Amino acid sequence: MSFDPADLSLDGFLDGRLRIAQPKTGFRSGMDAVLLAAACPAAPGARVLELGCGAGVASLCLMARVPVVAAALEVQPAYAALARENARRAGMALEVIEGDLTRMPAELRARGFDHVIANPPYFEAGTPAPDPGRAQARHESADLAAWIDAGLRRLVPGGWLTLIQRAERLGDLLAALGARAGAVTILPVAGRAGRPAGRVLLRARKGGRAPLRLLAPLVLHAAAAHGRDGEDLSDAAQAVLRRGEALDFSG
Amino acid sequence: MSFDPADLSLDGFLDGRLRIAQPKTGFRSGMDAVLLAAACPAAPGARVLELGCGAGVASLCLMARVPVVAAALEVQPAYAALARENARRAGMALEVIEGDLTRMPAELRARGFDHVIANPPYFEAGTPAPDPGRAQARHESADLAAWIDAGLRRLVPGGWLTLIQRAERLGDLLAALGARAGAVTILPVAGRAGRPAGRVLLRARKGGRAPLRLLAPLVLHAAAAHGRDGEDLSDAAQAVLRRGEALDFSG
Repeated sequence: MSFDPADLSLDGFLDGRLRIAQPKTGFRSGMDAVLLAAACPAAPGARVLELGCGAGVASLCLMARVPVVAAALEVQPAYAALARENARRAGMALEVIEGDLTRMPAELRARGFDHVIANPPYFEAGTPAPDPGRAQARHESADLAAWIDAGLRRLVPGGWLTLIQRAERLGDLLAALGARAGAVTILPVAGRAGRPAGRVLLRARKGGRAPLRLLAPLVLHAAAAHGRDGEDLSDAAQAVLRRGEALDFSG
Repeated sequence: MSFDPADLSLDGFLDGRLRIAQPKTGFRSGMDAVLLAAACPAAPGARVLELGCGAGVASLCLMARVPVVAAALEVQPAYAALARENARRAGMALEVIEGDLTRMPAELRARGFDHVIANPPYFEAGTPAPDPGRAQARHESADLAAWIDAGLRRLVPGGWLTLIQRAERLGDLLAALGARAGAVTILPVAGRAGRPAGRVLLRARKGGRAPLRLLAPLVLHAAAAHGRDGEDLSDAAQAVLRRGEALDFSG
């Protein structure tokens, strides 16, 4: 259960400091995984769990910024193997556990984490839903709720859940968090100034009671039109995507 | 049951085109009511209901922009009388009904509206909650849900609910809308560029299914520091607050 090396590409992240093998087709991590890592407020030594790590991009970007003790859960054996290989290549001690978040492996069920990060699948990523009706919406809500439920269960009291998701799922995210988490802070991510958010980064604290905060958007591109190869990245986006800095949630 | 004229001030809205008598102390409408009117996408001739109209500022600002057929519900007799007087002064045919939105008057229960607008009370407006705990939060959620429920009930299928509320209530707003409304569009309102939103304007369509949209914020002030008397209003804020233009929700 592993990828054929011929089917992999070696992609640079954080201005090339991190090199990640990923399948050329199928699920590939990109900007969203880097943003997720930048949004996690982990301190050195913090215990971090990533749900659904894929090739490991988010966890490895986070470890490149701050020396955390990181574990990552991945349901697909080939991706889990790839994440282990990518961690080895980066010289980072990422512990990769194979398993399903809806049937949390016993070795994780016994442990508590200061942070959980996740980039739950977007389901109809990049394309409109074939059927935008209620059945589909309910199905998606349930899936997203399962991710949030699994994350909250693994957090110690006062621990932080950090997520990235399509902006249109904001209502589902907040509904799934419900009363179990507070101090919700939402950072909208927009392609251009003045445009609607395409993604939201969301932090919530297990058992937190502080009021929700809706921050000013992170704007990714500075110019009016797309340059080539992201040449027009805003200063704020370059700080995160190239220099691997943390995102500011202090507002 | 009316205010002593000595206790009233006559305040200018929309660059002085609208003059509104309001009590000098107690509940006073301001910028939020004007923003609410600007966010309602009513076309000429549309039937509009405002819940909790106070002195009538939001409805009268809306009527100053577009010739709608407007009714307004107000629970406090003195404010209902004031709203009638303010409509008369403005020469506008605003129908003001005295009553409680949780026990909707029969004359309104029999009618359907194309738009409902509301600026539900902020409960701890301007001051931190004395007890930010769960009991208080539950109480507030219930209140906000009652406003949204009353509004959705009065809308015809496909009708629009438009609200303004503190940004920290965004989760409660979305929870109360639940599956009964869709096409939710959120316009954050921030005092300054780069600052968290203080308010959210929210539109939702009864029975709508379009995905949620999170727009770029409306920034009220242009300069780095407060000028006197709102001299530093941004162009976008001036368009709404002084010229009475509609807010752009097209994103």
